[in-house]
Amino acid sequence: MPRFRLDIEYDGSLFAGWQHQADQPSVQQAIEQAIEKFCGEAVRLRAAGRTDAGVHATAQVAHVDLAKAWPDDKVRDAVNAHLQAAGARIVILKATIVPDDFDARFSAIGRHYLYRILNRRAPSALEKGKVWWVPKRLDAAAMHEAAKLLLGRHDFTTFRSTQCQANSPIRTLERLDVSRAGDDLIEVRASARSFLHNQVRSMVGSLKRVGDGGWTSGDLKAALEARDRAACGQVAPPDGLFLIGVDYPG
Amino acid sequence: MPRFRLDIEYDGSLFAGWQHQADQPSVQQAIEQAIEKFCGEAVRLRAAGRTDAGVHATAQVAHVDLAKAWPDDKVRDAVNAHLQAAGARIVILKATIVPDDFDARFSAIGRHYLYRILNRRAPSALEKGKVWWVPKRLDAAAMHEAAKLLLGRHDFTTFRSTQCQANSPIRTLERLDVSRAGDDLIEVRASARSFLHNQVRSMVGSLKRVGDGGWTSGDLKAALEARDRAACGQVAPPDGLFLIGVDYPG
Repeated sequence: MPRFRLDIEYDGSLFAGWQHQADQPSVQQAIEQAIEKFCGEAVRLRAAGRTDAGVHATAQVAHVDLAKAWPDDKVRDAVNAHLQAAGARIVILKATIVPDDFDARFSAIGRHYLYRILNRRAPSALEKGKVWWVPKRLDAAAMHEAAKLLLGRHDFTTFRSTQCQANSPIRTLERLDVSRAGDDLIEVRASARSFLHNQVRSMVGSLKRVGDGGWTSGDLKAALEARDRAACGQVAPPDGLFLIGVDYPG
Repeated sequence: MPRFRLDIEYDGSLFAGWQHQADQPSVQQAIEQAIEKFCGEAVRLRAAGRTDAGVHATAQVAHVDLAKAWPDDKVRDAVNAHLQAAGARIVILKATIVPDDFDARFSAIGRHYLYRILNRRAPSALEKGKVWWVPKRLDAAAMHEAAKLLLGRHDFTTFRSTQCQANSPIRTLERLDVSRAGDDLIEVRASARSFLHNQVRSMVGSLKRVGDGGWTSGDLKAALEARDRAACGQVAPPDGLFLIGVDYPG
């Protein structure tokens, strides 16, 4: 059976996350249903990042096996038509036939996330649900400096959900940059081979504490070294989080 | 009575436009109601740009007279709290006491609009209602070249709504730039002292015809010179249009 790679964009606001849920709408299920409407096959997708409820993606990657080697454009356009008809804020950006050993989740060697903080006194009218609104002025430079303490290979127990199912809390954080984009927006960019459950939001929530003066960078370091979930500063809301890229070999 | 200038951001998707309507929600009315909840005064706002249904603003400007010289921050935060409570996607970015002769509409000497076209095969999941989706590849360079023909002082009858209430169809277009921002987005930026009703959307719709090869730049010139509404190429939908700035003397 030909295997298709799907590059996917979605607004996570209306979904209980990527993954199938017994009684709530998931991104995965919406796409699987659209594929079934297109070709009649009951399929199961596997994705690079199992994003949480409310988390968005500009570049999620999933794979699916179909019975026929449909033209790439046909798969993209037909599945999009069914998604649009269902009112789902999900689109297939690209569908591509890939080798059988491509696995969207297990072949991935890098994942990139963007977290957006709207840092101004007024909330957002235009990007509600797509930013974390923090009215108090944050020191983005201090956040960026502190973020360096989290780079590299660490036990990230402090920054993972208690529900995290990964075998090991050890991860290697390759990038964690904080910068102002314009006067009102702070962007946090995080990259790693893989992340623990809630890791990005936990790191961003703790960095925000540094930004508002509640924590020193020493406090952040102590939190990391505590290897204790209770030491986490705060978990940032899902609204500001976007999966923006997945890397594969070659 | 002290006069306040309000700088306003809104998502126009859920409104029948800026201006009061007998039986539909308007941005103006939502703000007037929030002000009344704040200070008990039934007020009337006047704005720089009476945006249509579905048109957005990042920098609308309006003025209002209040009985008391409230602190600026108090006005902004209190009105925002009432707007949020009402679920309106409108925020006051700034409230400022201004001289009595400041008039948001009549003192304005420049208005700036941005029009966004999403130009890719897949529709938008993340910016539904905030872009015009054009799946066919457009030639942005050809659109930019053609746009120059509309610059300067002209009779813009072709590019104004038949419902336009302006006395004269003569306007001076100071800027009309078309450029690609990334691979998938085309931005059109238009500036003038003032615009006719539907002028930006009419110009963008006609430029899109040039971009998709349906029109030559000569066709665009002929349309302008026809001074005939029927010669307009197409009126672009409101979704992609944003009022992004208003200039005042000094």
